[in-house]
Amino acid sequence: MADAILHGIFGSPFVRIAQLGFEEKTAPYRLAKMPFYAMKGEEHLARQPFGRIPALEHDGFALYETQAITRYVDEAFDGPRLQPENIRDRARMNQLIGIHDWYAFPSIGAVIAAQRVMGKTFKISVNEDEIAAVTPQADLSMREVDRIMGDSPYLAGDSFSLADIFFMPMMAFYELTPEGKATLARHPRLASWWSRVAPRPSMAKTRAEYTQT
Amino acid sequence: MADAILHGIFGSPFVRIAQLGFEEKTAPYRLAKMPFYAMKGEEHLARQPFGRIPALEHDGFALYETQAITRYVDEAFDGPRLQPENIRDRARMNQLIGIHDWYAFPSIGAVIAAQRVMGKTFKISVNEDEIAAVTPQADLSMREVDRIMGDSPYLAGDSFSLADIFFMPMMAFYELTPEGKATLARHPRLASWWSRVAPRPSMAKTRAEYTQT
Repeated sequence: MADAILHGIFGSPFVRIAQLGFEEKTAPYRLAKMPFYAMKGEEHLARQPFGRIPALEHDGFALYETQAITRYVDEAFDGPRLQPENIRDRARMNQLIGIHDWYAFPSIGAVIAAQRVMGKTFKISVNEDEIAAVTPQADLSMREVDRIMGDSPYLAGDSFSLADIFFMPMMAFYELTPEGKATLARHPRLASWWSRVAPRPSMAKTRAEYTQT
Repeated sequence: MADAILHGIFGSPFVRIAQLGFEEKTAPYRLAKMPFYAMKGEEHLARQPFGRIPALEHDGFALYETQAITRYVDEAFDGPRLQPENIRDRARMNQLIGIHDWYAFPSIGAVIAAQRVMGKTFKISVNEDEIAAVTPQADLSMREVDRIMGDSPYLAGDSFSLADIFFMPMMAFYELTPEGKATLARHPRLASWWSRVAPRPSMAKTRAEYTQT
């Protein structure tokens, strides 16, 4: 089988989620890096008509949408299982991925972390009013992740899963902001989880220069 | 095992998605209907802190997020399988659910259908500028669904799946609008799919009075 090719911008949180899927499976893939402006270019729109990233090509199969890609990578490649076998743990994983996509990323990833951390690289200005407006949702999202994780070692229970993978790239940005530091100080279980997953080799292999983790 | 209880507003597209999951599985459940204002009330916020619907209770297990609920219902109850066994068909299903949540629902469900169809019930006014602004994304979403489905009988291949379930409640509203009628006229395969799935008993059992389907 041909190696998988992941198209995307190196450093993008959703691209990193897909990369972490491959890295954690120890599955062969190649990141085909594109510049920012290429997202709306003809070549990429043929792969992903909405102009978003990442997009996957694997042995004649073309797929976009990060959730679909990571689930596919887990199911199509050998390596450690990234979706719990237990039905209720799997439901928790799915719920957490939903919380990431609907509530946490739109407030933390798209606003707070984008403006405070990625702003320098991608020329996004910091708007304190916008940040203040999304902070309640950001705080609630992290409170829910902490509550759902409870005393488990990983977000969706006893095993590392796609739930952890979805939150890791965002947390690598968020921990650099005052809001993220306050969140980790407020939630010791979440902080303990982060100190456990941040040093995973998959994170080192996918690190862009503007994050520390 | 105790019956499942689904909390939500009758007629909401996401509540109907979850209901369709139960109906298609022929799994026992009860819809605990709430009025619109109760979504941000204390009782519901204890179940779903973001104030969204639906939320599920099943035998001591509380779960929110529609994707998580429908996947759980498919896996925890007897009845026809709603997620394809074939890995690539399942990836297509996941991609289509992503297209629904990220591109189709924000344009069609939240704007065009909400203003033109649900507007009367929920006192949402029609803003033609807003509708015009989201129409390109709405059209592209439906074009992608049509392309991905190809000549398959169902959206994600040969078997009825959660991909169909996610798009059915939105299409029941959309077909009532000029934009939706134009979309179905432009995409005969999509129109054929809709004429096949709309008469399913699960749709009749979950029909609110302001949709025809």
